[in-house]
Amino acid sequence: MRRVEGGICAVEGVEAWGRRDGKDGLALVRARGRCVGVYTKNAFQAAPLVLTRARLASSRGWTEGIVVSSGNANSFTGRRGLEDAERMAELAADAMGVSRGRVLVSSTGVIGCRLNMPLIESQIERVAPMLEHSPRGSDAAARAILTTDRAKKEIAVEVGEGSERVVLGAIAKGAGMVEPNMATMLAFIYTDAQLPSPVLRRALREAVDCSFNMLTIDRDTSTNDMVLLTSVACERVPADMWVYEQNLREGLSYVCRELARMMAADAEGASTLITVNVRGAQSIEDARAAARAVAGSTLVKTAVYGRDPNWGRVAAALGYSGARVDAGRTSISIAGVHMVRGGEPLPFDEQQASRAMEGEELVIDIDLGMGSHSATAWGCDLTHEYVELNSRYRT
Amino acid sequence: MRRVEGGICAVEGVEAWGRRDGKDGLALVRARGRCVGVYTKNAFQAAPLVLTRARLASSRGWTEGIVVSSGNANSFTGRRGLEDAERMAELAADAMGVSRGRVLVSSTGVIGCRLNMPLIESQIERVAPMLEHSPRGSDAAARAILTTDRAKKEIAVEVGEGSERVVLGAIAKGAGMVEPNMATMLAFIYTDAQLPSPVLRRALREAVDCSFNMLTIDRDTSTNDMVLLTSVACERVPADMWVYEQNLREGLSYVCRELARMMAADAEGASTLITVNVRGAQSIEDARAAARAVAGSTLVKTAVYGRDPNWGRVAAALGYSGARVDAGRTSISIAGVHMVRGGEPLPFDEQQASRAMEGEELVIDIDLGMGSHSATAWGCDLTHEYVELNSRYRT
Repeated sequence: MRRVEGGICAVEGVEAWGRRDGKDGLALVRARGRCVGVYTKNAFQAAPLVLTRARLASSRGWTEGIVVSSGNANSFTGRRGLEDAERMAELAADAMGVSRGRVLVSSTGVIGCRLNMPLIESQIERVAPMLEHSPRGSDAAARAILTTDRAKKEIAVEVGEGSERVVLGAIAKGAGMVEPNMATMLAFIYTDAQLPSPVLRRALREAVDCSFNMLTIDRDTSTNDMVLLTSVACERVPADMWVYEQNLREGLSYVCRELARMMAADAEGASTLITVNVRGAQSIEDARAAARAVAGSTLVKTAVYGRDPNWGRVAAALGYSGARVDAGRTSISIAGVHMVRGGEPLPFDEQQASRAMEGEELVIDIDLGMGSHSATAWGCDLTHEYVELNSRYRT
Repeated sequence: MRRVEGGICAVEGVEAWGRRDGKDGLALVRARGRCVGVYTKNAFQAAPLVLTRARLASSRGWTEGIVVSSGNANSFTGRRGLEDAERMAELAADAMGVSRGRVLVSSTGVIGCRLNMPLIESQIERVAPMLEHSPRGSDAAARAILTTDRAKKEIAVEVGEGSERVVLGAIAKGAGMVEPNMATMLAFIYTDAQLPSPVLRRALREAVDCSFNMLTIDRDTSTNDMVLLTSVACERVPADMWVYEQNLREGLSYVCRELARMMAADAEGASTLITVNVRGAQSIEDARAAARAVAGSTLVKTAVYGRDPNWGRVAAALGYSGARVDAGRTSISIAGVHMVRGGEPLPFDEQQASRAMEGEELVIDIDLGMGSHSATAWGCDLTHEYVELNSRYRT
């Protein structure tokens, strides 16, 4: 697998552009192909989600493009919110010169406010003529969909060789209101791999379960999360179908994990990316639950911020995670320093451990000693900046 | 029902005292009677819990006293932790002149460190001779069990008249690592009501479900939580057993709710007590889940801190609470300002709403419009002080 340049425009047939006016961004992507998605599990689903799911259902997954707005989630906006989402799709379809009914819609931002439709209309009119199949196009779209994110989230890879070569490109946003409960942010992934929708869907679900679903920032699940994977139409006849499918899966997993890590590292106010590796679990569900509980614990997050090697908080989180645990078998290391082995607290130098916790990434390794399953979760520290940012989000 | 003075010593037959040496406190309570308890659901249960449960099981609930230490949880301390808890109970039994094997043990504080037994021994020796049946005794015990709490948590009430009169007194601690998952802090409740253990147990469970289990501070469940209700031995023959039992239940519910409110108000770093009232739920479970999700949402908590009437975050929390919800039936008021009615966002003056959110208590009212069940949860805002306190908890 090789990282390549170009983001979503690394994939043949994808054209993109975006712009930002103050807090409000708008991106367009034109790409004809088959699309599969996963969505938030929040019972309140925002208008763009409702519309996108309905359109994919009625078109059997066929899409010709997407319009994404940031700054306003168009969530909890009643019937008029749905009308706004439909109007947004129509405007985008006309401006991009594609079929009405084949444009998907996504929005992210404040919940409970109606969209500023005149602004959206003017943005669509200005973005559509700029669409280009180039790294610049992907870059512009990736920047336009950000909200409180500090950094652009974009990636592209090439997997395999010859007729089995698969290219994947993705852009994403996500820095807050992030809790693994299906997908938990926006991500738009494109590939040139030509595979049946059920195969694409299964591959996406697997990749999401090990990436976006293992990411937790504040344990708040948004109403707008979606991950869309579009297989852009082209003629491909791989010699070895099995290798071809494996290449897609490998690339997809890598892309999703890297995007999840970017989100954790760029989380609101975060100074440290926390990676929690759990092994020795009795089941994959136990491994995931344990890893997520530790990564999501408010008290672990504040301890990391304070560089306090307080492994007792890690133990407490394992205890309430729901995973099968046994104190006498649990081992915990923080930043490479072994603190508990088989339930026995080990002596360690607190100051040295505190210094080892410095840096942009902190790894917590846990062995539950119960079985052979493992999982990794990502989170971030809880800082003064997080409180500052979220107490003043709208003001 | 009348509030009375004296804390746990408002109940005949209860003697208490406590002292503090730096971060380490110790309290003793001597009271002969039958005891029922509820405990944390954390899979890792601290040594004092393991010992207390075992003793209550073997004595069929009969107890003669309790020793409580604060500053160190004696949790995740292996077999030696259990030996320390047993030794602590023996020392306390001898010092109080009661039967070994009839003293319960409770501890709260840092997880993963062995107790300082020489300190505990000297504290027991100094506290035991001071035991007194007086408001001063309860006060000293209530102060000794605090950790990061800023305020003492103590209450006593009298319910009913004549031979049906019931007296209840309680002390408690709890300011962080608080999530409703059984009981979620320490509380020691005493009563002179003479009722069978199953009745006491059911009454305690009901009271806990509507109080401590509706309290959330940081969604971290401790390994040491316990609520013990002791019916202090005395001769009582109520004329009307039904009224007598109702008086106990009424008093117990009130005591537990007031203690839960005290904990939320005194939560680590908190400036505002958040009360979330949910009505119109399809079931009591739905009502509780919805109320707790809103009270526990990190983003609601930061919005309250910033006095931002961001009801969209309340809606998002309802959506992921697991309760059955319908956007078109949901109504939301914050600080008395109606913001959503039947799913329709209402116009309101943002600045006026922000001003209405000032003060020490903020009430969020939600009507799910789905049924007739209701519940109340308590939480607090998430502040810079919380981050400060918890990033430096041990340093």
